Amino acid sequence: MFILINLKTYVCDPIEIAKAANSVSSELGVRIAVAPQSIHLKEVVETGVETWAQHMDRGGEKIRTGTITSTGLSEIGVTGSLLNHSEHRLLLAEIDENVQEASKMKLETVVCANNPIQIAAVTSLNSTFVAVEPPELIGSGISVSKAAPDVVRDAVDSARRINPKIPVLCGAGISTGEDVSTAKELGAEGVLLASSVAKAKDPQKSIEELLSDI
Amino acid sequence: MFILINLKTYVCDPIEIAKAANSVSSELGVRIAVAPQSIHLKEVVETGVETWAQHMDRGGEKIRTGTITSTGLSEIGVTGSLLNHSEHRLLLAEIDENVQEASKMKLETVVCANNPIQIAAVTSLNSTFVAVEPPELIGSGISVSKAAPDVVRDAVDSARRINPKIPVLCGAGISTGEDVSTAKELGAEGVLLASSVAKAKDPQKSIEELLSDI
Amino acid sequence: MFILINLKTYVCDPIEIAKAANSVSSELGVRIAVAPQSIHLKEVVETGVETWAQHMDRGGEKIRTGTITSTGLSEIGVTGSLLNHSEHRLLLAEIDENVQEASKMKLETVVCANNPIQIAAVTSLNSTFVAVEPPELIGSGISVSKAAPDVVRDAVDSARRINPKIPVLCGAGISTGEDVSTAKELGAEGVLLASSVAKAKDPQKSIEELLSDI
Amino acid sequence: MFILINLKTYVCDPIEIAKAANSVSSELGVRIAVAPQSIHLKEVVETGVETWAQHMDRGGEKIRTGTITSTGLSEIGVTGSLLNHSEHRLLLAEIDENVQEASKMKLETVVCANNPIQIAAVTSLNSTFVAVEPPELIGSGISVSKAAPDVVRDAVDSARRINPKIPVLCGAGISTGEDVSTAKELGAEGVLLASSVAKAKDPQKSIEELLSDI
Repeated sequence: MFILINLKTYVCDPIEIAKAANSVSSELGVRIAVAPQSIHLKEVVETGVETWAQHMDRGGEKIRTGTITSTGLSEIGVTGSLLNHSEHRLLLAEIDENVQEASKMKLETVVCANNPIQIAAVTSLNSTFVAVEPPELIGSGISVSKAAPDVVRDAVDSARRINPKIPVLCGAGISTGEDVSTAKELGAEGVLLASSVAKAKDPQKSIEELLSDI
Repeated sequence: MFILINLKTYVCDPIEIAKAANSVSSELGVRIAVAPQSIHLKEVVETGVETWAQHMDRGGEKIRTGTITSTGLSEIGVTGSLLNHSEHRLLLAEIDENVQEASKMKLETVVCANNPIQIAAVTSLNSTFVAVEPPELIGSGISVSKAAPDVVRDAVDSARRINPKIPVLCGAGISTGEDVSTAKELGAEGVLLASSVAKAKDPQKSIEELLSDI
Repeated sequence: MFILINLKTYVCDPIEIAKAANSVSSELGVRIAVAPQSIHLKEVVETGVETWAQHMDRGGEKIRTGTITSTGLSEIGVTGSLLNHSEHRLLLAEIDENVQEASKMKLETVVCANNPIQIAAVTSLNSTFVAVEPPELIGSGISVSKAAPDVVRDAVDSARRINPKIPVLCGAGISTGEDVSTAKELGAEGVLLASSVAKAKDPQKSIEELLSDI
Repeated sequence: MFILINLKTYVCDPIEIAKAANSVSSELGVRIAVAPQSIHLKEVVETGVETWAQHMDRGGEKIRTGTITSTGLSEIGVTGSLLNHSEHRLLLAEIDENVQEASKMKLETVVCANNPIQIAAVTSLNSTFVAVEPPELIGSGISVSKAAPDVVRDAVDSARRINPKIPVLCGAGISTGEDVSTAKELGAEGVLLASSVAKAKDPQKSIEELLSDI
């Protein structure tokens, strides 16, 4: 299972969370990554934890202002980027270009989508992972693996039919070890989660809890 | 072959073109549709020609200002709508929602895309047609079927692998009968074209010319 | 007072409303305009009523797909266009360009804004009118002239300080004659309204009601 | 004069430039700030140079993914943010909200605009500075102060008429000491520049050159 912790714009201590994630990852041998705000990426990389960007913009050859480029992410040692998160939707053509740009810079990508049909669509774009997150459950505290098991199962089926080599993650409301183990049973090879760690009083405990059932 | 004439924002006489298209369509038994600006949709429908919208917005339950809804298009007798034209790109989630809304209102859809990879992606969204148009050839006068036959062939292959029931159109620079017949040989079941008819002195002649080789 | 009836995407009979507005306007000598969906603009123009677009896109020299141009609106006899409605926000640079394009085509413009500060900003762009509409009151049934008289008064003051020749309209929740007369007392030279006419069983009565107190 | 060096997405060494800017600023007693990519903000702050963001997103109460918030910028010691740069245009309503959010967090703001009319508009929004940059000159190597002195002069006049307390910067093609001194003579109280420093072999020399004539 791949555990990707998206810190969103939560007010939290990204370094504390990064260190906790890194230590649990080493201890349990589970792949755990942290996606902080862009202003914290470099210092999170320096903790040694696998670090992801929450978003990446199209660069191409064009010079721009106020955007996050694959070149910049690659230079500072980031592993990959979320793309098309439900809180940062992209044009289809942008997702395609971003995945290709990331791939040239040896960055991994997780392309998010709302439902199994969109998962089928994005699986054709050859990202490293795809992730299904029903928007109505994001931030709800209700776990997708419990509340919408069919969405996860159908997303896994959709992606497999298009390209069985691209693993499916799921997200929305994931906070317990049971949520993670259920996601695994449904065919997901990882989870996206945010508030349950970012808002936790004891981030390390909250991460250990996520892994308690697998 | 399905011939879809997109009048874009060209200054032209949409009624004259609609009548010409309707007459050539009846005479030769070829499916021809005209996509005028939204302000001309109703009068183009009234000529009897098959009429398409150039774009449709998300409606859902929400009341909005200045948008084109599936309900509105359906009420005035439009057959379908282009979506995600390279001059009007949409979010992936919007394309999905728009295709579903159109389908509920019995409207057909052509989802456009830049290249074979994006064609694979949009074919998963279950529109009536998909259309490949390399943006660099749009409005260039250089025909996609001559300049980029591999793009058309690969788009047809991509779409077939995902869903063989969804026909592929191609567009960009189509202006002669040979362009259309080459497109057909490459596996396209129709073409999108614009300037060669919209800017023609004699639209009827230009439409007949397109059909001279099939 | 200028009464601008925005039909938004409401399912209603734009022709019936246009005729009612035209007849009340003639009878009472009050300027009343109707802004239907773009697909109905031409037939609304043909009723003789003053007709406005709900939105207009940038055209410039560039050919586009699925957009509404000043050239198109001008050709079919539309008087003007709303711009930057709270349900169709625009980039600042777009508002500037659109106002200028409209002006070249002899189209009037109403630039909408959320609050008195934004009203001051848009008044510098030289549109025909500016309109203040607090987004939280739009569609609420609670009249801006009653619930937020200070917003209207401050918007009028803001605009006057920048350019006293540009009249200020107000909108959101306007449905009664008292709402309109209060708006007038607060310094507004017109009102924007939508649901109270678009959803009325008897549109003519609802329009007469609006004018009952001025 | 306020010298704001926007590093855009140029591949350059932000720390070297920050140190050079800081040293020239101290030596000559001129206010100089550096605006690196968001991923470099924190380490640029740590050099001691005045540090600006190239862009800031709306935050409000809402949690988002992949955006740059005023809270985040404030926490790491950034002084302010560019808003509405011609390579990152914003909705009018966003500029208003962003300026207000920044102000609550004690962040300064430079709101950019294309021309004197838009400068008048944005001056009403109460940012710390406004900046006029004709888009056609950005990255051109042709200085706005030489090629378009009227644009600078009219922008200064426009802003003064609205609010004489808001200083006007100018930008586009600024690279020499003469460009800066001419800008000053035209009434600008600072300059925005990018490539002449970001692409310089010797950044310190390029910054000293900018200040050689004032």
